[in-house]
Amino acid sequence: MLRYGSLHGNTLGIEVVLADGRILNDMRALRKDNTGYDLKQLFIGSEGTLGVITAAAIAVVPKPNSVNVACFKVSNFGGVQELFSQARGALGEILSAFEFWDGQCGGVLAEHHPNLFPDSSNSGFFVLVETAGSNAEHDTDKLTTFLESIMTEGLVEDGVLAQDQRQQNDLWARREGIPEACSKQPQIGGKGFSQVHKFDISLPANCYYDLVPLLRGKCPEGLKVFGFGHVGDGNLHVNLVDCAGLPKEQIEGIFQFIFDWTAENGGSVSAEHGIGQAKRDVLHLSKSSTAIDLMKSFKTLLDPNGILNPGKVL
Amino acid sequence: MLRYGSLHGNTLGIEVVLADGRILNDMRALRKDNTGYDLKQLFIGSEGTLGVITAAAIAVVPKPNSVNVACFKVSNFGGVQELFSQARGALGEILSAFEFWDGQCGGVLAEHHPNLFPDSSNSGFFVLVETAGSNAEHDTDKLTTFLESIMTEGLVEDGVLAQDQRQQNDLWARREGIPEACSKQPQIGGKGFSQVHKFDISLPANCYYDLVPLLRGKCPEGLKVFGFGHVGDGNLHVNLVDCAGLPKEQIEGIFQFIFDWTAENGGSVSAEHGIGQAKRDVLHLSKSSTAIDLMKSFKTLLDPNGILNPGKVL
Repeated sequence: MLRYGSLHGNTLGIEVVLADGRILNDMRALRKDNTGYDLKQLFIGSEGTLGVITAAAIAVVPKPNSVNVACFKVSNFGGVQELFSQARGALGEILSAFEFWDGQCGGVLAEHHPNLFPDSSNSGFFVLVETAGSNAEHDTDKLTTFLESIMTEGLVEDGVLAQDQRQQNDLWARREGIPEACSKQPQIGGKGFSQVHKFDISLPANCYYDLVPLLRGKCPEGLKVFGFGHVGDGNLHVNLVDCAGLPKEQIEGIFQFIFDWTAENGGSVSAEHGIGQAKRDVLHLSKSSTAIDLMKSFKTLLDPNGILNPGKVL
Repeated sequence: MLRYGSLHGNTLGIEVVLADGRILNDMRALRKDNTGYDLKQLFIGSEGTLGVITAAAIAVVPKPNSVNVACFKVSNFGGVQELFSQARGALGEILSAFEFWDGQCGGVLAEHHPNLFPDSSNSGFFVLVETAGSNAEHDTDKLTTFLESIMTEGLVEDGVLAQDQRQQNDLWARREGIPEACSKQPQIGGKGFSQVHKFDISLPANCYYDLVPLLRGKCPEGLKVFGFGHVGDGNLHVNLVDCAGLPKEQIEGIFQFIFDWTAENGGSVSAEHGIGQAKRDVLHLSKSSTAIDLMKSFKTLLDPNGILNPGKVL
């Protein structure tokens, strides 16, 4: 996403079966086609509620010749943002991912993966940087300059640059292993695992991580808060792990606080996961009543009998 | 477009005034927001027929530290395609433009700009390559490797690499000066300039330039054909210059041939210019009847009284 953009930009054509059985065939794979309304866009991300997409033509980029992955430990979130700023400057067009997770995530990762480096203790922040480019020598040179600069400035406490594909996979496995590590937290006094509640929001850069410490201040004992996500896209994942088996009303109050705070700060209550059933009741926090009215009009127009994925989105 | 993609991918939010006076405010500038249908996409490129866009938030990229522009002469169109393939390989992520014009364009440019290099005679093909990157040294190195390779292989007859900003502007002025140079062709036996008919189509790579020689074979004396465009996006501009003042029916027959041939070969009758009034009657050549029916339904839904830019698109 950070490097290659949204599927709304990369999808060249789709084929959709409409509710009345007609087939909309818009499968020409042209990069530029400004003939009338861009109908395919309405179906992309509509979660099957406006039509069933049966084929798609997507523009892909050539596999990069050179990929590098590094992982850093930073003492505070301001340092993560400064690191992102410096990575954009020094790595420019080859920066393909900039991911972070907080010390709480680092702590649960360490329980499942011993001997991690940088030290994965329950403090500070971790950053994964990936580059993808066409010229290995130039990419290494850019990365070395970046590493020297951030080390000299003392911006990072520690860091590791993967030396081969296996080490790259290992570093990515940390970031991608966070949801599973969260889900393995034991219930206090119980036998099984704790319940995990997942949030997928996006926020403006100036308040991107603020929600997580706020939540930690509000959450009762036994409700753990884990923050991680795609800094480059403004997309924050928050996992709440309920080790205490809290009453439903108490948990739901926290949910509402997360959604309200996100909306008040100009964020989206669903960055990439969509609306489905679970977020239908909070759609109005991210979209105006006019927008929701329009969505309903399109739904009625395209699926008057409500046969397409009923009960979802609207 | 080649490097940064489509506005459908880069537009983060818009504000639209609807036909009934309601304002659709969807101006959150978030990179990721999957809350319901992506309504803004329907308005982008709708030429004011569904609503009036009054504000937009667009993701922009940082100004590149380093820009290079080169111009080459190639003997045939197969060579242009081979050059594009090699440019993508050698220049990778820094390739920001790959434009071409044919010898006929070169000829009229030479009438207005003497002493062009490479030699701008009425033959062969010309290519403009632009790179944009974050590291001048690396970009120059990639470009030098590319230049050495294509010179050694004899892929280009001649070439020039701009040495400063002024020379870069001069090279771009050739490509951008083609429409004006076409419009300055004198009428045979007349006093004024000839009429220019402009086409903006996109075509699959395997037949991208085929239309131009075909047209030259079909066009009567006095009707000149100029081919140029954005090879990287599959977008071909064809300018027909009518120096003979041909009868309307004869000209319109040629127009129809262009549109029909484009449709038969899987192209779009309007790559970037849109439909407006001029191409309403050929919209069906690029879009299925189901697609046009859907467009009409959306138009009726959003503008039941037909007050928004009437007579355009549909």
